[in-house]
Amino acid sequence: MDNNNTQPDAPRAMRELIPEPALRRLPWYLAYVSTLKARGVAYVSSTTISREINVDASQIAKDLSFINIKGKTRIGYEVEELEKRLSSFLGFNREHNAVMIGVGSLGAALIADSGLQRYGLDIVAGFDIKPELVGNTIAGVPIYDMARFGELRSRLGAEIAIVAVPVDAAQHVADTLIAHGIKALWNFTPSRLRAPEGIVIENTSIYAHLAVIYNCLAK
Amino acid sequence: MDNNNTQPDAPRAMRELIPEPALRRLPWYLAYVSTLKARGVAYVSSTTISREINVDASQIAKDLSFINIKGKTRIGYEVEELEKRLSSFLGFNREHNAVMIGVGSLGAALIADSGLQRYGLDIVAGFDIKPELVGNTIAGVPIYDMARFGELRSRLGAEIAIVAVPVDAAQHVADTLIAHGIKALWNFTPSRLRAPEGIVIENTSIYAHLAVIYNCLAK
Repeated sequence: MDNNNTQPDAPRAMRELIPEPALRRLPWYLAYVSTLKARGVAYVSSTTISREINVDASQIAKDLSFINIKGKTRIGYEVEELEKRLSSFLGFNREHNAVMIGVGSLGAALIADSGLQRYGLDIVAGFDIKPELVGNTIAGVPIYDMARFGELRSRLGAEIAIVAVPVDAAQHVADTLIAHGIKALWNFTPSRLRAPEGIVIENTSIYAHLAVIYNCLAK
Repeated sequence: MDNNNTQPDAPRAMRELIPEPALRRLPWYLAYVSTLKARGVAYVSSTTISREINVDASQIAKDLSFINIKGKTRIGYEVEELEKRLSSFLGFNREHNAVMIGVGSLGAALIADSGLQRYGLDIVAGFDIKPELVGNTIAGVPIYDMARFGELRSRLGAEIAIVAVPVDAAQHVADTLIAHGIKALWNFTPSRLRAPEGIVIENTSIYAHLAVIYNCLAK
């Protein structure tokens, strides 16, 4: 057990135990519990969380057991403790360096969105191939030439790359990033990216969301 | 069959037939086919698409059958036709008016991202409660007081609302939007929103993506 720093990581065994669907639900619980904390509420039951966010109470209790927290009979979970555990388990209270690849309209917007920082994502640099963008800063973040990625990556201490390049460049760019030590790609392009085993790819699927919305409205 | 305008909607029956997972894959095919079109490629087989985006060729052929397009034996799909059909079926080549609710750092960034417009999303107005934001424009888009939402919604012709408000306001705001005629919510908050039957809610789950990335990197 790794208990010797002030913001302990979840133990490795626990991280490997939690199923991905449960992991994806934890941020909902955290969001709700944060509002309770802000309102000075001391305890919350899984039944109350369930009513609020529309997930079965038994599922919530099961999900929360993965982060090693148990509610007290008839009282429920201690809000402050639950918020701290969730935030720590999810890694939202630690800084994770990331680079933004492609600083066109979406990339620049994501750099400027200070909200990501509150969830532990620190965008430390941007990269692009357009000469008119290179050398600028966006919200204080320096923009470098993509040609310098290999040279700068490890110095920047970033293992996460946010990809917002044009569709026809996406796969080639992904390959380059991985070759230079990037371990996780957060894909904002409409492309489906391929990557070797062991590399994390998360697709935001903005375009799939739009497709579903338009399709439902047209019915 | 609705064939009497220049950019026909997919027929209602066809829209209702397509399963959601298939619908969510179509934008991947479109993204890839667009790059082929830009490179002047005339035909593509499902095998080639499969290799490129890592979906079974048989699955691709099945998904594409929902949009009523069939490949020719030994030649494959006609790229230009496939691109047009996909774009039209997905509704990306028509304008859909949307409003941005909450024009803080993320909301403002999304308004400024001109990329969404290329996928048919036209953000026609923003709403906020902060007096210092109301009356401004962002990238030419006017920002109104949230208190005027009921009065302005139908005039703006928007059925889609993009929600980027603070967590503790999210559900209340969603209820207000729905009460005033919004049919689809694109949720960028970490909250899980509740809505009556018939209202579309798409969650971007930015925070779930970060949770998965951090968790995988910590392993």
